[in-house]
Amino acid sequence: MKFDELIYLLQKGSAGVNKYFLGNNPEVTSCASIDLATSKQLSFLEKGNSLIHELTNSKASALLLPKQTDLQEIACKKDIAWVEMCDPRLGFAESLDILHPTKKPIKGIHPSAVIEDNVYLGDDVYIGAKVFIGEGSQIGSNTIIHPGVVIYEEVEVGENSELHANSVIHSKTKISKRCVIHSNAVIGSEGFGFVPTKKGWRKMPQTGIVVLEEDVEVGSCSTVDRPSVGETIIGAGTKIDNLVQIAHGVKTGKDCAMASQVGIAGGATLGNGVILAGQVGVGNRVKVGDKVVASSKTGIHANVEAGEIVSGFPAMPNRLWLRCSAIFRRLPEFASNIRELRKDSSE
Amino acid sequence: MKFDELIYLLQKGSAGVNKYFLGNNPEVTSCASIDLATSKQLSFLEKGNSLIHELTNSKASALLLPKQTDLQEIACKKDIAWVEMCDPRLGFAESLDILHPTKKPIKGIHPSAVIEDNVYLGDDVYIGAKVFIGEGSQIGSNTIIHPGVVIYEEVEVGENSELHANSVIHSKTKISKRCVIHSNAVIGSEGFGFVPTKKGWRKMPQTGIVVLEEDVEVGSCSTVDRPSVGETIIGAGTKIDNLVQIAHGVKTGKDCAMASQVGIAGGATLGNGVILAGQVGVGNRVKVGDKVVASSKTGIHANVEAGEIVSGFPAMPNRLWLRCSAIFRRLPEFASNIRELRKDSSE
Amino acid sequence: MKFDELIYLLQKGSAGVNKYFLGNNPEVTSCASIDLATSKQLSFLEKGNSLIHELTNSKASALLLPKQTDLQEIACKKDIAWVEMCDPRLGFAESLDILHPTKKPIKGIHPSAVIEDNVYLGDDVYIGAKVFIGEGSQIGSNTIIHPGVVIYEEVEVGENSELHANSVIHSKTKISKRCVIHSNAVIGSEGFGFVPTKKGWRKMPQTGIVVLEEDVEVGSCSTVDRPSVGETIIGAGTKIDNLVQIAHGVKTGKDCAMASQVGIAGGATLGNGVILAGQVGVGNRVKVGDKVVASSKTGIHANVEAGEIVSGFPAMPNRLWLRCSAIFRRLPEFASNIRELRKDSSE
Repeated sequence: MKFDELIYLLQKGSAGVNKYFLGNNPEVTSCASIDLATSKQLSFLEKGNSLIHELTNSKASALLLPKQTDLQEIACKKDIAWVEMCDPRLGFAESLDILHPTKKPIKGIHPSAVIEDNVYLGDDVYIGAKVFIGEGSQIGSNTIIHPGVVIYEEVEVGENSELHANSVIHSKTKISKRCVIHSNAVIGSEGFGFVPTKKGWRKMPQTGIVVLEEDVEVGSCSTVDRPSVGETIIGAGTKIDNLVQIAHGVKTGKDCAMASQVGIAGGATLGNGVILAGQVGVGNRVKVGDKVVASSKTGIHANVEAGEIVSGFPAMPNRLWLRCSAIFRRLPEFASNIRELRKDSSE
Repeated sequence: MKFDELIYLLQKGSAGVNKYFLGNNPEVTSCASIDLATSKQLSFLEKGNSLIHELTNSKASALLLPKQTDLQEIACKKDIAWVEMCDPRLGFAESLDILHPTKKPIKGIHPSAVIEDNVYLGDDVYIGAKVFIGEGSQIGSNTIIHPGVVIYEEVEVGENSELHANSVIHSKTKISKRCVIHSNAVIGSEGFGFVPTKKGWRKMPQTGIVVLEEDVEVGSCSTVDRPSVGETIIGAGTKIDNLVQIAHGVKTGKDCAMASQVGIAGGATLGNGVILAGQVGVGNRVKVGDKVVASSKTGIHANVEAGEIVSGFPAMPNRLWLRCSAIFRRLPEFASNIRELRKDSSE
Repeated sequence: MKFDELIYLLQKGSAGVNKYFLGNNPEVTSCASIDLATSKQLSFLEKGNSLIHELTNSKASALLLPKQTDLQEIACKKDIAWVEMCDPRLGFAESLDILHPTKKPIKGIHPSAVIEDNVYLGDDVYIGAKVFIGEGSQIGSNTIIHPGVVIYEEVEVGENSELHANSVIHSKTKISKRCVIHSNAVIGSEGFGFVPTKKGWRKMPQTGIVVLEEDVEVGSCSTVDRPSVGETIIGAGTKIDNLVQIAHGVKTGKDCAMASQVGIAGGATLGNGVILAGQVGVGNRVKVGDKVVASSKTGIHANVEAGEIVSGFPAMPNRLWLRCSAIFRRLPEFASNIRELRKDSSE
């Protein structure tokens, strides 16, 4: 489409169109990163000058720019069309939806799917090949279930959700509207609960359930366990990356984000808007306050107050950890200093 | 059921019924945690007073209590029926089995299952939809194989085992009696063995097998690899949580427990009763003695003697690690102390 | 086969046969490790004396030995036949292929496989039970697709590749020749990209693709994500173990090796021949140079120059980390030294 048509569509979005420079109103057919974009491609820049070199060399036809005069001037000089947006990254997301619309599977039920008794299917669902849906489960309207998914008994899946290939949903799990479960994820499997006895580990039956509130995503090969009693709850809008473990009885607030390989132990609770970077661990029954951020590999073994940024293991304030880590590298020097001082003092 | 009926059934269990207070012999229909339990619900408390506040406010109808007078007195005052047990946690596990019996799938073979030639199926097996069982495999009596499981050739699965949905069992794996394989776990895949050559990595063929002894559990999305020659062995009664990696040629003793995201490198051996907390790593060919406990995120790079509790990376005795970690936080202070001392001493 | 026949076949390989001692030219039927080998079994030793005790006690019938006189003399004395090879480990890999040939599935398409329109299948493919292949995908000749695999639309899989059971390949992924995807791995799933907005996380559409170059292996339950725009690329000959996360937009060079539970964050790049041990993390957009080696649990947060060996978190040169870690254990002693020195100095 022509760039002015794209701008017209972006104006209906939430990213805030301010002003624009149409140039020769180029044809824009796809999106690319600023360094790789070529003719007919759209790219974006955020505030700052970290990519100014890439901009200077860019072959993009059109750009989403922040309110930043120098970037806009370079684009004008290079005769690249641009539009100034309040949030160019959000504008790029909206442009991707416009220029690269996702091909949704055609509604219907594949004849190889196995659907047990008393299953409720909403309107316009897609049930792929070799899907299994257990007795008494309910699938909301417009929901897409890709090939090979296994849904045990009495599961609820809300409207407009998408379950990717070969994921597994265990009995009685409640998945709300607009959730996405990625391939090979497992929701509602048994929590890891055992009672030590003289004859070895005795399983604590896991009779609780998992609840995913609205707009939750769970990444590929991630696991969310059900508890012995009660519920494991993932709060609305929370996004979980690949290979993440959510143990039995965990409760997260709304809009949390957990990067890959995070592990949250049994009974831990996260507030709203918590962000955990890759490979972070959270201990049993620990409480993590609202908007806490933990950098990668952090081990959170004790409660963390709302708003803190933590790092290291055991977790400590990020600034303190940065200082301590810098000193850690210099320990050999300090050790030799101490040796000398002790020598001096004993003389 | 009435509480006295439950007590009668618990007396047949192993958790040790001592004495009880029937109160009005309430109806008990389900189990819950002490803070969430309401009318007709059973809960439990263990020794100690950490949950005394929850007990005081509890709306449970009945309790499993330890031998601890103050807890029993509070329960009596609140007119909550209770039974004193030697092991209330074990009693709770038994109560869950009584009050929340697991619905087992009805025996039989789903018509969509694909069973190759020379497969032996024991009595009363359940083979779910879309299961694949390769040539020459043997499935013991009463074993449950959920939908989507893929079993390669010449696999042995013992009696009373359960394989959850979409798990994969590779050729010649031996799974003993009463094992549980959770959804999307992979048992017996090729070990990660390559020989460096001038033309790049050359695969070391992985011709060995995986053996799971009796009563082993493997969590969702966990992987147990087979070795180039010989066996990878998981000892009887060992429990493995989700997303755990057991590399080729590992041998574990009996009754070990490994929490989520543990990784055990090739050829390592664990003794009996080893407990590894979340995200622990064990290095190549390392030997970990009986009853070793490693706290979360520990990196075990060298052999550990039986009975030790280790932490940190590289792993060290837990007590030492706690002290060192506490000092780590104070490194900026010590660094400034040293600077001052050196200034003084050079004056 | 007789040992001289095996030697004849090994001479055609790349491991370099030098000289040999046939002894009574034993029958050799299988391979085993030096400590477990018995009659009719072949084993190998590499340079060094670490396994000399095992050799002295070995019951193997034949050995692959390095150019090392003492080992050869012991073997002669024990009347064990041997052949001296330039690379006995490589010779063992070749012997495994000779003595334990992998049983490949018989070519053909299982009737339960679901193959959508416009799918191209090369010659001599094996398509297992319950495989799903989406519209427009192309499968190269001699490729093996095990039961339960789900291939979305417009995927390309090269010749002589192997996709293990229940793995999932997302739309437009390009898998080159001779790749191996292990069970339950997920290739081409959506990258974890979200834009923060006032209404919560807004998905950044992930319209890019994943490219696996020739001879790549991806382990069981590993995940390789596609980016919002552009490509995630795994370089030729790179081997990835189980439970590894490769985030959107990562690019690796050729012949890298990543052990289990490694996580590589979005946009990071690895050079050629990079080796990452278990549980290593690499941060967003970090550049790791050619032939870098990172020991287990290393956290690489900043660029690393070619050829470096790094350890620890934040990553530092391995030698430095070893020294610092040794001192870390002695921090209580140093803390008490400082206390004393300060006491002395204030007196």
